[in-house]
Amino acid sequence: MTDTTAHRSLTLLGLGDMGTALARTWLAAGHSPTVWNRTPAKAGALAAEGAYVAATAADAVAANTLVVVCLLDDASVGAALDGIDLTGKDLVNLTTGTPGEARARAAWAAERGARYLDGGIMATPTMIGVPEAGGYVFYSGSRALFDSSRALLEVPTGSRFVGEDPGHAALHDVALLSAMWGMFAGISQAYALTEGEDIAPKDLAPLLSEWLGAMGFFVGNAAERLTSRDFTSGVVSNLAMQVAGSGTMLRTAEEQGVSAELITPYVDLLHRRLAADPAAHGGEDTTGAILLLKR
Amino acid sequence: MTDTTAHRSLTLLGLGDMGTALARTWLAAGHSPTVWNRTPAKAGALAAEGAYVAATAADAVAANTLVVVCLLDDASVGAALDGIDLTGKDLVNLTTGTPGEARARAAWAAERGARYLDGGIMATPTMIGVPEAGGYVFYSGSRALFDSSRALLEVPTGSRFVGEDPGHAALHDVALLSAMWGMFAGISQAYALTEGEDIAPKDLAPLLSEWLGAMGFFVGNAAERLTSRDFTSGVVSNLAMQVAGSGTMLRTAEEQGVSAELITPYVDLLHRRLAADPAAHGGEDTTGAILLLKR
Ligand SMILES: NC(=O)c1ccc[n+]([C@@H]2O[C@H](COP(=O)([O-])OP(=O)(O)OC[C@H]3O[C@@H](n4cnc5c(N)ncnc54)[C@H](OP(=O)(O)O)[C@@H]3O)[C@@H](O)[C@H]2O)c1
Ligand SMILES: NC(=O)c1ccc[n+]([C@@H]2O[C@H](COP(=O)([O-])OP(=O)(O)OC[C@H]3O[C@@H](n4cnc5c(N)ncnc54)[C@H](OP(=O)(O)O)[C@@H]3O)[C@@H](O)[C@H]2O)c1
Repeated sequence: MTDTTAHRSLTLLGLGDMGTALARTWLAAGHSPTVWNRTPAKAGALAAEGAYVAATAADAVAANTLVVVCLLDDASVGAALDGIDLTGKDLVNLTTGTPGEARARAAWAAERGARYLDGGIMATPTMIGVPEAGGYVFYSGSRALFDSSRALLEVPTGSRFVGEDPGHAALHDVALLSAMWGMFAGISQAYALTEGEDIAPKDLAPLLSEWLGAMGFFVGNAAERLTSRDFTSGVVSNLAMQVAGSGTMLRTAEEQGVSAELITPYVDLLHRRLAADPAAHGGEDTTGAILLLKR
Repeated sequence: MTDTTAHRSLTLLGLGDMGTALARTWLAAGHSPTVWNRTPAKAGALAAEGAYVAATAADAVAANTLVVVCLLDDASVGAALDGIDLTGKDLVNLTTGTPGEARARAAWAAERGARYLDGGIMATPTMIGVPEAGGYVFYSGSRALFDSSRALLEVPTGSRFVGEDPGHAALHDVALLSAMWGMFAGISQAYALTEGEDIAPKDLAPLLSEWLGAMGFFVGNAAERLTSRDFTSGVVSNLAMQVAGSGTMLRTAEEQGVSAELITPYVDLLHRRLAADPAAHGGEDTTGAILLLKR
């Protein structure tokens, strides 16, 4: 019997910031990846560190069963793998894309006789190989491929398998990034409102952090309500009150000379939910408004 | 010498949900508030619990030096106190309003010979009298009044004094609520994206909570950068990358049949910051974009 994880070989296509970080952790762990990059110069340092550098993407793919791809976008994956024999290969695509792109790429791989696993990287290159940084990759697609390659894939960073639908890794990735951008937008508004006042950002920061931490209860609360479809039981700050209170937020932005563009869409959404049926929705929390986003 | 905190008297104008909750905690702590409400019926239960019920707002104000007001909005404060002698009174206004309204109300109180303290309540009525719920009130305005009434004001919930500018309590209140609504908008987008997919909200919830907790570093990071005005040192995910990646988020929303209205304004803001000077801003994090919000 051979050990299927230790020193098992793999191919990595793409040596941008992320690919290079991935390659380094495999090298540091004693693996010998075969690497390829469109612009060959980027492979030089890795060759000195023990990586096999393939001259072409086809050579790189031919070298190993497990082929990890980390390129700019889905189009570059198509370009790099165009015309290359993938029969019997295990393709792990860590390139960021949409759920639809991942599903199409999975079908494309299946037509070519390859197993397919899609990944959405929730880490920056600086977090790769640093377990305490807490980064990880969402994986979806072939469960068998995930199970057989998991140990190797977890050398650079953690993993979370989120289902056999190959689009679900990308969907989780985008869902979390969307939530983050909403939070960043809110934080940006808070700092903009206090800019030019005698309120130091470093004094506002701990208040903001504590408050957002406390208000994070909405994540679990919304999950329960979306499941039960009960948007009213146990509500303390109801939609009617929140909509009434939104005027103070908008007028404060106006007074402070700050654009309300980042908060207006959410205020509008809550208004629309309430206006659709004030009697039915006035006692809801803000979860019900989520339903209006789905077309 | 008399004990200035224990069993000290105060007047409370306004027995809505919040005023009633406040009155109950003072009663429970052994104080004997004089209360008044425009609609007298709401005072009935409190009278039975030991509160003195005044027939008019003028009578209520005359009964004590410390007068706490918790009404619907600033206009209702003006209406309730219209023509009443405030000479020598200590007015603590817990009514939600804008910073401008608080400043105007402070000037109005000063003209009438009263000390003024403005409050922004960061709690729901259910959190009043429940210290472990973590609620508190932002106070700003007269520091002397805050110091002398603090022990009594902290009976219902905690306090944070944020400066002598009477508008700063309201500004902190609105800043935190704005940040919360941004976060709620982001969370809403995340759930909307996964609606109708085989992804249970309760499975997404812990991933979202963990991610938002980790990304909360932006609060402190932005504070440092806004202070130093250094938006580029040590940036890992730079603006150029974030703007490039935003297409995936918008296309995913499109694919999932979800409106992008909640995230588009922030994407647009980042685009504008980058476009203004790609060479100068491409290497920034997302903090620099905050400057565009201030007109
Ligand atoms: N960096 C991060 O913080 C981060 C975080 C999470 C996810 N990701 C994702 O990881 C992937 C790689 O990111 P990165 O930071 O490494 O990007 P990067 O530094 O810009 O590198 C892009 C890579 O794609 C290659 N490439 C672009 N177009 C190509 C084409 N048509 N054919 C072949 N190769 C092509 C580049 O080759 P050349 O060297 O020849 O240009 C390079 O290897 C992206 O999908 C990104 O969204 C990155
Ligand atoms: N409830 C919360 O979760 C919460 C949280 C934070 C801050 N706050 C703030 O606390 C304040 C009170 O909130 P609440 O929940 O108690 O509101 P509420 O239940 O709607 O009560 C409103 C109060 O204002 C009085 N009022 C309205 N217009 C008036 C007028 N023209 N003259 C005299 N009195 C008038 C009402 O008297 P009647 O009984 O005669 O109508 C009632 O006592 C508001 O500024 C609110 O924003 C509330």
